[in-house]
This record gives sequence, structure tokens and C-alpha cells, in this order.
Amino acid sequence: MVKVNDNYLKLPGSYLFSTIGKKVAAFSAANPDKKIIRLGIGDVTQPLAPAIIDALHSAVDEMADAATFKGYAPDLGYEFLRSAIAKNDYADRGCDIAADEIFVSDGAKCDSSNIQEIFSLDNKIAVCDPVYPVYVDSNVMAGRTGTWDPATETWSDVIYMQCTAENNFAPELPKETPDLIYLCFPNNPTGSTITKDQLQVWVDYANRVGAVIIYDAAYEAYISEENVPHTIYECDGARTCAIELRSFSKNAGFTGVRLGFTVVPKELKAGDTYLHGLWARRHGTKYNGAPYIVQKAGEAVYSPEGKAQLKEQVAYYMKNAAVIYEGLKSAGYTVSGGVNAPYIWLKTPDGMSSWEFFDYLLEKGNVVGTPGSGFGPSGEGYFRLTAFGSYENTVEAIERMKKL
Amino acid sequence: MVKVNDNYLKLPGSYLFSTIGKKVAAFSAANPDKKIIRLGIGDVTQPLAPAIIDALHSAVDEMADAATFKGYAPDLGYEFLRSAIAKNDYADRGCDIAADEIFVSDGAKCDSSNIQEIFSLDNKIAVCDPVYPVYVDSNVMAGRTGTWDPATETWSDVIYMQCTAENNFAPELPKETPDLIYLCFPNNPTGSTITKDQLQVWVDYANRVGAVIIYDAAYEAYISEENVPHTIYECDGARTCAIELRSFSKNAGFTGVRLGFTVVPKELKAGDTYLHGLWARRHGTKYNGAPYIVQKAGEAVYSPEGKAQLKEQVAYYMKNAAVIYEGLKSAGYTVSGGVNAPYIWLKTPDGMSSWEFFDYLLEKGNVVGTPGSGFGPSGEGYFRLTAFGSYENTVEAIERMKKL
Repeated sequence: MVKVNDNYLKLPGSYLFSTIGKKVAAFSAANPDKKIIRLGIGDVTQPLAPAIIDALHSAVDEMADAATFKGYAPDLGYEFLRSAIAKNDYADRGCDIAADEIFVSDGAKCDSSNIQEIFSLDNKIAVCDPVYPVYVDSNVMAGRTGTWDPATETWSDVIYMQCTAENNFAPELPKETPDLIYLCFPNNPTGSTITKDQLQVWVDYANRVGAVIIYDAAYEAYISEENVPHTIYECDGARTCAIELRSFSKNAGFTGVRLGFTVVPKELKAGDTYLHGLWARRHGTKYNGAPYIVQKAGEAVYSPEGKAQLKEQVAYYMKNAAVIYEGLKSAGYTVSGGVNAPYIWLKTPDGMSSWEFFDYLLEKGNVVGTPGSGFGPSGEGYFRLTAFGSYENTVEAIERMKKL
Repeated sequence: MVKVNDNYLKLPGSYLFSTIGKKVAAFSAANPDKKIIRLGIGDVTQPLAPAIIDALHSAVDEMADAATFKGYAPDLGYEFLRSAIAKNDYADRGCDIAADEIFVSDGAKCDSSNIQEIFSLDNKIAVCDPVYPVYVDSNVMAGRTGTWDPATETWSDVIYMQCTAENNFAPELPKETPDLIYLCFPNNPTGSTITKDQLQVWVDYANRVGAVIIYDAAYEAYISEENVPHTIYECDGARTCAIELRSFSKNAGFTGVRLGFTVVPKELKAGDTYLHGLWARRHGTKYNGAPYIVQKAGEAVYSPEGKAQLKEQVAYYMKNAAVIYEGLKSAGYTVSGGVNAPYIWLKTPDGMSSWEFFDYLLEKGNVVGTPGSGFGPSGEGYFRLTAFGSYENTVEAIERMKKL
């Protein structure tokens, strides 16, 4: 008799953004006259840059001609894209990452949830609290997290590293030694960052205790300060302890285009086993490549025109971040983030819980944000707003919030 | 100290098509003057149909305008595509499948390897022998298959259902009761099919013993005979025992475009748990949707123009299948398949092993096929050729084989 994976039944509630989507849909259906402004999900709103549109059209034309038609992509991704990544994201920053250490995928969400599959179920994970839910939920589904305690809203076998106002939203080295450490900087959801020196402490720690860092750098394009690392491979020794996840969703507006990549250095080992070969095997067996036209769009991100256009696009969103940050601060909110990241993290007013503030803001201001508690217990009493709306909507949303 | 998933270390050799790719690359590098014809991997060669190209260009233009730009897709896929699938692939065939039972994905390879994740590790799988390697390898990686016996080339905890000339390449009900049954018709690799009555026997069996059938219908567009089912939901009772996997790769030439879907009927349960909710949860947590432009391309597959153009494309490949089938038969080969499937399954001549014949054919005829033994022990002594080459190349390959 067939049985299900019981680990799925342990998951409390549904995926955070599905829940938000349902709440907003219900409100919208009940209030069709209200103009809802969405600053909740980190989903971009600006059109693809012209250089990317051109690349897409051109690649579509190639698919229309037998002489240039492309079928299955190479396992790791097309060489043209992997080389462009190796040069622009790594060599140009002085980091030693080869094209064949880069695995092209359909996005960092998939990679960040799939990467745990190559590790033992006995490994213990450490995550920031609050944290992007996918890291934890994918480990729950795999059966690596023990039991759920509804009182504390934590898993028995997960090491939580609290990121609060007290430590400036930067995690401290955990007391208990983890095997897998998930780090994300610039951080989702808090918008905080750490310096290169601070990240070096993590790399040294991981090498010392034999842990692997899963480093999610999906928001690196939003870094504006000098001493904040764009990649973990800026740190000495990262090649022997770190896997890096990257995305085109936020630096190039690809949330609906789907492209990302994972870097697994060839030296990186767990025990005697090289992880590069394991991830290659997973990639080859359980994945079949990103679309050719999308990989060509990715290549255009690194063209001179693409770079210039995307710099403007990022600046557009960061102007929104400043509007949110300054506007809420002047209105008396306690805010952080927004300087090296497209996320603003604010303390809910009047002691409201995160979900209470979500409902209040949706009903009274018709503005959608993300409840901090959805990212973990230390997110309770906080709320995330994103800079990915249009400028006009962002200004209007903040004006509405000021009037509440 | 971090540890790897030991199940990966049990996998013998690398993924079949990676091995073939490496062998062909080595031969090609050593013999740059030789024109190699590839009838190995089931990869299409004809350009995308005009209706699909138009849809892609139009969708790219939408992404260039803020008013029509699309970010993250809905979890299950866009409604316009799911409705088109529900109507054309199911309602029009008299099958009762609703749009919200369809989960759009980036292809059947991913779905067929991911679907096992929602089931218990205690479940026992049954597969045809020979079989598409992804079904087995994904279960090996999850730890569901026991130990590998190199002598028999089988896993201790897998039920193998032999498909040989004796049973006309149609599996018989297994003696030991499985929990999960992988079936693929029209079959990859043998090109064989079963009738609707024969499939009904499997559906009745699965309902009786409480098993779930994972039904891979990736090749249904190649069915030419009346009594061969296009979907398992043509059978009574399939909604309570079957998940169906479908692909746009072969019916629309999307191997490099990436689109597929999985059907999980809402009645389908394992014990007390509905599988629809489990797959939805996996989809929402470990996947982030197929690109909007690709889903629009998928919609065009169902337009009147798209349908007419793709009917021609399938006919083009099936003409190749006839060339291979008739040509090899007249040359004295023992061949099957090729009537309702783009695959021809042939017995290797002179008692050669499958890999011996692979090397022989590559070196002497410069033709690439797929060794039957790569699909399982009962594939030994067989060889797969695909109809996905160009007509000219297919004719030339068969001429070369006739002369060997």
C-alpha cells in the first residue's frame, strides 16, 4: 500500500507567499473598488531591459531555423553564459571561479531548495532567524529538521541564529556546531548586510569545524557600500567551504523569466567526496537545463548595453527603497535595511503582531507587505516592505502609511 | 562535520546520456573529418513551428512593457495554459481532468524525478526493464532502492518487470506487490505500446492493491493506432490511482524550450492523504514556475495553426521512423517500435553487446544510437534509434547501416 512522505505532513500551514496571495485575493474580491499596492512578495515590476528584449527576440529567431535551432542544453548550461558569469561576477572581482564550476539553473529558489539533497539526512542545518522559508521547508520535506514545536515555532533539530535589532540583524557564530550553514547577504528578509571581515569570520569558522556554507547572494546587485562583499569567494578559503547561489531575478528583473546559477568549487569536499560531482549528477539526473532563449537573455545581462540599462533599473528600485526608508522613518517607524538591499524591515507599531499589522495595513491602507513572523519567530513584531513596486505606487503606499 | 548523501555514491557510472555525449565528443575530436549522425538522444531537430515562434515574439514584447510585464507565475502555472491543456488533452478525449489538477512545469524529466519525493522512502517501486533511467536513478538518490548488484545490474529493492520480445515488450503484472508503478507508453526506449484494454488491467490492479501508477505519456502525440490510449485517464478508475506526466518536448519540439506538466487528480489518495495537496506544496516550495514566454508558447501549441503545424512536424518524424524501421528490417535486422512512437528498438547483430554495437556503429558508420543495456539488463543485446533526426540524415544513416 502506497504511503506518503510523512515529513510533508509536519509542515505547519502553507507556503508563506501562497497564504498572502490568498488573503489579498479574498480582500480584493470583497473590495473591487480598492486599489491595492503590493510591496509584499519580492517581485519586480519594471519591464525587461532593451538589451535583454533584443537578445530574446534574436534567440527566438534562431529557434525558427533548423540551422540554428537548439534542442537540449548542455548539462551545466551553455558555455557562453557560464563564461560571461565567470568573467563578470568573479574574475572581475578578483575571485577565482572557473566556468565549469558554474551550474546554470532556472532560479535560486529551486537551487536553494534542491541543494540539500546532496547532503546526508544526518546533517544539522543552521539558519538565520528570521529566514527565507524555502531553506527550512525544503529540509523539513527531506526529513532533516526533527519535530515542530508550535509554542516556540521552531524545529527541534535546526540551529536558529537570531538576527535582531540587538545584533544589528547579523547572526553570531552558533554555540552548537552545524554541518550546513545557510547565509543570505544582502539579507532577505531584513535587508541587512555584513562586511567582508564579518563574512571572513564565517568562512574561517566553516573551514575549522568542517561545515559547508550555502551562501545566497541573490541581492548582491543592490550593494551600495564599499566594504560589503558581492560574493563569498572574496573571502580567503571560501573555495573549500562554500557553495554560492545566484539569481537573475532581482539584478535583471527575471522573476518571470527564470534564470539563476549555483557555484560549486572543485576543491569543496564533504569527507572524501567532492561536492561538484554530486551536484553535477543531481543536475544531470533531475534537471534538464534552462531554455536556450533564456540563457541568451542571461548573456545579454553582461553586455555593455545590458549592464548600463540594469544599473539604471537597480537604481530605480533603490530610489524606491529610499522613499520607503526615509518616509517611514520620518513618520516615526523604526526601520532598517534598504541601503544595500531592496528590502526595508520595520518594527510594527503599537505592539501589533506581524499578521495583525498585515491585516491592518491591507484593510486600512490597501498596502500589501510581508509579516516578519512568516520568516521565523524572531521576525515577530516586524514587517517587510520591498522596493520592487513602481515609483508612483511606492510613493503612494508610503503616503497612505503616513496617514494611518 | 558535513556528510554527503551516501545514496549518490551507490549510483553506478554516470547518467547514460552524459556517457554517450562524452564518447561521441572524444570520437569527434579524434576524427574531425567524419560526419557523425546522431540518432541517440531523443532530441528534436526541426525548428519550432511558426505559430509558436509568433507566440514567443509576442510574449517577449509583453515583457518589454511595464503594463504587460509578468513577474512570478502562479504556482500551478498560468490559467490560460492549464485551461488549454484541460480542454484539448483531456475534455476533448472524454476525460474528466480539471484545469486545477494540472501542474505546469519545466519538463517531464524534472517531474518524473521529483514526483517520488512526495512518497515514503518505504515504498517499493516497480519499473519496466528496460526503462528510462531517470525513474530509477531519482529513487536511488532518495534511498529507496536498496543495494546494487553489479552481477545482475539490478537494485535489491526494485521490482523489475521485464519487457522482451517474448511478451511483445509489454510488462506483466508483477508477482511482488509494488507501491509505486512507473509506466511509460508509448514506451521509451522500446517504442512499444499497449492497448486501452491492457492499460485498464493496470489501473484495476493498482486500485486493487493500493498502488499509485506514475504514467509517463510524453510520446502520446506519436500514436497512430486507434486502440492505443493517449492518456491513462481514458481508463475507468484512473483518477483514484494514477498521476500522469506530459511533455511538450516531443509533440512540439520543446526540448530546448522546456515545458511539461503533471496531472494529479483531486481524488487520488495515499492512505488518508490527498496527493494533490502534497504535490502543490512541493511545487510551491521547491519550484518557481515555467517562464511566462514559454507558457505562452505552450498555449500556441493548442491554437488551430499550432495544431496543424505540429501535426505536420510529428508526421515528419514518423516518416523518419518508417525509414528506419523498413530500412533495417529489409537489411535483416530484427526491429520493433516506430509505429506509435518515435523510437525504433533493434536487436544487435551477431550477438554483439549493446555497447559493442554502439562503438561499432560510431566507428564504422559514424552513427550514434543508444545502447539498450543503458536502460536496464533486459535491454542488453538491444539498441535504440530515434526518429528525431532530419530526414536526409536519417536516410543517410540507414544507408550506412545497410552497408556495414
